[in-house]
Amino acid sequence: MQIDLNSDLGESLGAWTMGDDAAMLDIVTSANVACGFHAGDPAGILATLRAAQARGVVVGAHVAYPDLVGFGRRNMDVASSDLVASVIYQIGALQGLAAAAGTRVRYVKPHGALYNTIAHDERQARDVIAAIRAVDAGLALVALAGSPLVRWAEDAGLRVVAEAFADRAYTPQGTLVSRREAGAVLHDPAVVAARMLRLVRDGVVEAVDGSLAPVRADSICVHGDSPGAVTMAAQLRRTLQQAGVALAPFAAREGA
Amino acid sequence: MQIDLNSDLGESLGAWTMGDDAAMLDIVTSANVACGFHAGDPAGILATLRAAQARGVVVGAHVAYPDLVGFGRRNMDVASSDLVASVIYQIGALQGLAAAAGTRVRYVKPHGALYNTIAHDERQARDVIAAIRAVDAGLALVALAGSPLVRWAEDAGLRVVAEAFADRAYTPQGTLVSRREAGAVLHDPAVVAARMLRLVRDGVVEAVDGSLAPVRADSICVHGDSPGAVTMAAQLRRTLQQAGVALAPFAAREGA
Amino acid sequence: MQIDLNSDLGESLGAWTMGDDAAMLDIVTSANVACGFHAGDPAGILATLRAAQARGVVVGAHVAYPDLVGFGRRNMDVASSDLVASVIYQIGALQGLAAAAGTRVRYVKPHGALYNTIAHDERQARDVIAAIRAVDAGLALVALAGSPLVRWAEDAGLRVVAEAFADRAYTPQGTLVSRREAGAVLHDPAVVAARMLRLVRDGVVEAVDGSLAPVRADSICVHGDSPGAVTMAAQLRRTLQQAGVALAPFAAREGA
Amino acid sequence: MQIDLNSDLGESLGAWTMGDDAAMLDIVTSANVACGFHAGDPAGILATLRAAQARGVVVGAHVAYPDLVGFGRRNMDVASSDLVASVIYQIGALQGLAAAAGTRVRYVKPHGALYNTIAHDERQARDVIAAIRAVDAGLALVALAGSPLVRWAEDAGLRVVAEAFADRAYTPQGTLVSRREAGAVLHDPAVVAARMLRLVRDGVVEAVDGSLAPVRADSICVHGDSPGAVTMAAQLRRTLQQAGVALAPFAAREGA
Repeated sequence: MQIDLNSDLGESLGAWTMGDDAAMLDIVTSANVACGFHAGDPAGILATLRAAQARGVVVGAHVAYPDLVGFGRRNMDVASSDLVASVIYQIGALQGLAAAAGTRVRYVKPHGALYNTIAHDERQARDVIAAIRAVDAGLALVALAGSPLVRWAEDAGLRVVAEAFADRAYTPQGTLVSRREAGAVLHDPAVVAARMLRLVRDGVVEAVDGSLAPVRADSICVHGDSPGAVTMAAQLRRTLQQAGVALAPFAAREGA
Repeated sequence: MQIDLNSDLGESLGAWTMGDDAAMLDIVTSANVACGFHAGDPAGILATLRAAQARGVVVGAHVAYPDLVGFGRRNMDVASSDLVASVIYQIGALQGLAAAAGTRVRYVKPHGALYNTIAHDERQARDVIAAIRAVDAGLALVALAGSPLVRWAEDAGLRVVAEAFADRAYTPQGTLVSRREAGAVLHDPAVVAARMLRLVRDGVVEAVDGSLAPVRADSICVHGDSPGAVTMAAQLRRTLQQAGVALAPFAAREGA
Repeated sequence: MQIDLNSDLGESLGAWTMGDDAAMLDIVTSANVACGFHAGDPAGILATLRAAQARGVVVGAHVAYPDLVGFGRRNMDVASSDLVASVIYQIGALQGLAAAAGTRVRYVKPHGALYNTIAHDERQARDVIAAIRAVDAGLALVALAGSPLVRWAEDAGLRVVAEAFADRAYTPQGTLVSRREAGAVLHDPAVVAARMLRLVRDGVVEAVDGSLAPVRADSICVHGDSPGAVTMAAQLRRTLQQAGVALAPFAAREGA
Repeated sequence: MQIDLNSDLGESLGAWTMGDDAAMLDIVTSANVACGFHAGDPAGILATLRAAQARGVVVGAHVAYPDLVGFGRRNMDVASSDLVASVIYQIGALQGLAAAAGTRVRYVKPHGALYNTIAHDERQARDVIAAIRAVDAGLALVALAGSPLVRWAEDAGLRVVAEAFADRAYTPQGTLVSRREAGAVLHDPAVVAARMLRLVRDGVVEAVDGSLAPVRADSICVHGDSPGAVTMAAQLRRTLQQAGVALAPFAAREGA
């Protein structure tokens, strides 16, 4: 049994700090690194990439809408020509910085509103897929497990990495409970760890109605934007390891 | 006899147009393409790269300080860690878009205030050199002919392309007359063309005092930001060709 | 008979020019001046305000979503707290610059996607209305004639200025034909001038089906973003004046 | 005896938090509120202004160079037309938000690199002075005690508020020891409080050579960007109050 843990890193901006990248790099196996559109300035991104490289953590491009003030969380009706080009731009920028850090971008994970939109919006999904293929068709795409995006990307020839969210509640159909509903976000580290162990072992999560929802995931997303989040992620890692689950990046490490 | 003609392109921004990229791509052999920090949005940059690729024009990264409102023309006291990383970021972004356009970034030319600063400021010059080497030590650096930067970059192992400016007056020492002085910019296309032909043939330009200043240049920079500028560049191209000077990019084209 | 002509001005950005503000200020009676979010840098905005003041043209705040690359034309799902505060911020910034130019902001006209959205989206409409009232309840709001926004704003106690678009086709119901449909934009200056004269005289425009649609407008929006647009606006002004229609700002001039 | 305490607030940006505004508003009597150029988004600025208003803390415009990534700490060679207009823009934006918060901007304090530059650079100093006068000549200017700026601004008719820095070492001449030198920043809250009490009582601070340097200050700047900084500021306030020093804004409160 094996699973990948991923988290959003490199999200500081100049004098502003976000999260604890150093702590999270000791926990995760894949780092979704901001590319400057929703967060991250070049020097801060480079520092995160170097820290990831030093720990053998695989890096991916955390591409987003251009929206610092909204942290990439606001829907934007971006035309295809702009969306395709801006995703390419971000991947390229991160590839340049990754080369300088002695590592390589192995995958793309859209962020925030872009992530949620392309999970279901075919036009923007195809724009992101086209952007990835235009730069390097060998890059994997991290997508919401069970979303239509998984099939669109696979049909286009991309390797898709389905991901589950450690701290989110699921519907009986295996989709996320909307954040607008009560109970959508879980807060007990022990509960979260037990749920994710079950996901890895049995391919199911307990849904909000008590039923077991099938969720096939290659990676689990954990957060690091608060001390409590780091603690939860660390406990999840320990629980998985103690149960004999190997933690390994879904993408092979450089030279591995 | 052979020379390269280069120009700054891709400097539109969203709804704002700058220059006539299509016209200039029929004149120059190398295109310095904006990277989004002083000008250029991803979709516009990509369109320029595609147009350059279609005409066989070699492309370079026109890196700059982060300053849209000042068009990269304002000096900024950027720390080394920020300057190195932001130059890498820009080169990488352009590499990504170039790959999508079926071409490849072959050189780096700093823009505006950064260009002027690193011609003489060793700290920032070494930052830019380090950035280029960190991404791809095979990228050439376009630098002001006769400036200290040429030696710093060569000492660091970079290929340096010295450039002259078609429409600028020169001192007897072969350096540019400051724009603050009267007569620093030339406006007669015939005069400009004759001067540049002499530069290519004899390695000299007539200085402001009438003496002949030695200028060794591998490329001539022409402007395209006004209809008059495009006319001047076109006349320079014709004059050089009619005199038997071959126009060719200093960097070999893809596949050439 | 009297009417106001308004146009979007101050939309240059640093080195990038947009439209011909000087020409348009000789035509219009009200200038919608960009506030830096979709276009306009402080120095350029100030220059436009001074030119407007010198010609006795009344100025309004052309507020927008924060989106330079998209020129404020892309829908953004901005939270109410952000939208209210960012509209206040823009109005305030323009008020400061207007004071420095010896004039005063008399009205607010939302731009682009924000204009279209609040014409029908009540949540964002109420945010913009709240922002205006929070700064100065005496500011008028320029709104699309016939849209629900007119009533929402009037109910909130704002003075509303309904506007028609000189170069747009209308439905029999007096609403704009969508730009996505053929014939939505008119190009013949003589036709446009005749239509607007009829609007002023009779309160009707000929709709796309040949019927006469009632349109009550206090102001007519003309464009100045191309030489052809300036010509069309100038002809409209001449036609109206020759027919005895007085051109005057809907908002009283300073001191008038 | 009476003194003002001021601090830089409103410096969060969207999802990024900076400092503890709520804690500092219980300590200071004047709040230098970011205007969006080095920090601060409209909604965050408005929240800070409302909190200041609720506590009776006077607010000023903390104007800066346009540089989010550098937090306004990088020198920029901004032309006068741009600097004047951008300072006006920022003051106006804050005035708009202050009106919405039920308060009013009473002074201007330049931030970071702009603060340091205009303390000694006459051209940029006169630009900032001109900007303030263009918006409202009744606004005070907070300036470094003992700097040439104090006289330039007073000569131009502005009210100048000289400020001292609680946690900085002084030269025998009463100027700040450069941050590049060891011992430039003080860390012991008790020492800092004692020094500032002496400043208020006797108009002197103990310089680095043990001599007593004369420093005439109307306000003391305290920081709030770390828990330690908040603690130091709180102790300073207590020490001053226990010694019978009245803490009061240099600018009268609204209605006071």
